[in-house]
Amino acid sequence: MSAGTIYGVGLGPGDPELMSVRADRLVRNATHIAYFRKAGRPGRSRTIVEGMLRPDVVEIAMEYPVTTEIPLDDPAYAESLAGFYEEVAEDIRKTARTGADIVVLCEGDPFFYGSFMHLYTRVRDHLPVQVVPAITGMSASWTATGIPITWGDDVLSVLLGTMSEEDLTRHMIAADAIVVMKVGRNLPKVRRALEQAGKADRAWLVECASMAEERALPLAEAGERASPYFSIILVHGQGRRP
Amino acid sequence: MSAGTIYGVGLGPGDPELMSVRADRLVRNATHIAYFRKAGRPGRSRTIVEGMLRPDVVEIAMEYPVTTEIPLDDPAYAESLAGFYEEVAEDIRKTARTGADIVVLCEGDPFFYGSFMHLYTRVRDHLPVQVVPAITGMSASWTATGIPITWGDDVLSVLLGTMSEEDLTRHMIAADAIVVMKVGRNLPKVRRALEQAGKADRAWLVECASMAEERALPLAEAGERASPYFSIILVHGQGRRP
Ligand SMILES: C[S@@+](CC[C@H](N)C(=O)[O-])C[C@H]1O[C@@H](n2cnc3c(N)ncnc32)[C@H](O)[C@@H]1O
Ligand SMILES: C[S@@+](CC[C@H](N)C(=O)[O-])C[C@H]1O[C@@H](n2cnc3c(N)ncnc32)[C@H](O)[C@@H]1O
Repeated sequence: MSAGTIYGVGLGPGDPELMSVRADRLVRNATHIAYFRKAGRPGRSRTIVEGMLRPDVVEIAMEYPVTTEIPLDDPAYAESLAGFYEEVAEDIRKTARTGADIVVLCEGDPFFYGSFMHLYTRVRDHLPVQVVPAITGMSASWTATGIPITWGDDVLSVLLGTMSEEDLTRHMIAADAIVVMKVGRNLPKVRRALEQAGKADRAWLVECASMAEERALPLAEAGERASPYFSIILVHGQGRRP
Repeated sequence: MSAGTIYGVGLGPGDPELMSVRADRLVRNATHIAYFRKAGRPGRSRTIVEGMLRPDVVEIAMEYPVTTEIPLDDPAYAESLAGFYEEVAEDIRKTARTGADIVVLCEGDPFFYGSFMHLYTRVRDHLPVQVVPAITGMSASWTATGIPITWGDDVLSVLLGTMSEEDLTRHMIAADAIVVMKVGRNLPKVRRALEQAGKADRAWLVECASMAEERALPLAEAGERASPYFSIILVHGQGRRP
């Protein structure tokens, strides 16, 4: 029996209609699906495909270990996950060797800051892998603002809320258009960096783009609210336009 | 009779299966489509939807004016297009006022360096407009290399081959991961900038990602070949990974 294929399938930003035609087909026909989630949570990627699965689908839930000592956005947390990724990769490899194709559900695009990448590097030398690109959370976010993100020669920089305030500020000054991912509890720091870069007044906050809870508003109107995990801050480019 | 809606529909990077489920539905049901193209060419976005359209669909081809004096990648060219965009926007507004919904076909994501944006700014105050985000050419390009683009806190900068060599070099030094769009005839300049930034040996060239002619190879192996319009240069991030 020949080994099954691992499909890293990007589901897009949340709205099931924003899945690609290929992803939609792979999900509906899947005999085995796998997805990451926090213990005790349904998992966003699993939620997106609710109602689309075969009744007899085999589900492999890959649950992140709970660490109470290390905050989730600490680099040390990611490093502590190596053992976990080894384990789930071994699981996936074993199942694929029984001949099963496995559809790994990924939020947004699999190769863009995705958890799937940690599995990918651990299975690609052992098994056939196919990756299906997808609409990113940032595309859905700038669409939600109703304003194009880049014009002409605008440079777009994608930054992370987990970066230091100094690094954020420096990159914000250099770029024409800005996307900040992983905002969440980092919102106050990101706001200070935007102020230092002189761009806070043009920034937008987008929460849960394309999902039922979608919310897009100028950052100046956002107040001190806590942002959910699926939040992005944007500054639109002002480049050349005929 | 109430006015029709303008749909700015992102078709994705080229493969029709990478269209979103929503885009697929809108295209198949469209009574009126509109698309940009160069005079005498079929137009990439029109090619993507070949075979999907209603037999009685009304087609509005918006043909770029031919200018022989100004090179296409000269900023002056874009500025000379203002009159053209005014004209096609007036056309679209007129048709929509007859009650017709119009699906405007867009390559990649409509709000990411898209021609649709020039139409959008000219119709959004007059008519209902809905924009459907899509998979970008860059997502399909990094997928084609088989290597994830960003890890951990990697900063991704999107640059344009039309920028000056100095600006390109400066931004290439500052970023961890790099996407250069609009490569085409700018390839030699982009290569020099990458060399000055010390990143040429890690760069990839991707042509026509997800299309039949797709080609992905390390830039070092690309030689002096002329790149097609749909070309992207990538440098993958090397960030933290457990
Ligand atoms: C680990 S990254 C994964 C990115 C994903 N692979 C993509 O292509 O968008 C998670 C971050 O993406 C952003 N994000 C993803 N989807 C989003 C959405 N629908 N709305 C807002 N932010 C989103 C948030 O900033 C979140 O912290
Ligand atoms: C005017 S921009 C439009 C970008 C588009 N809206 C998107 O979301 O990808 C055109 C540039 O996008 C890049 N591009 C778009 N699709 C591509 C593909 N399938 N393969 C390679 N490059 C592509 C090329 O660099 C090209 O010069």
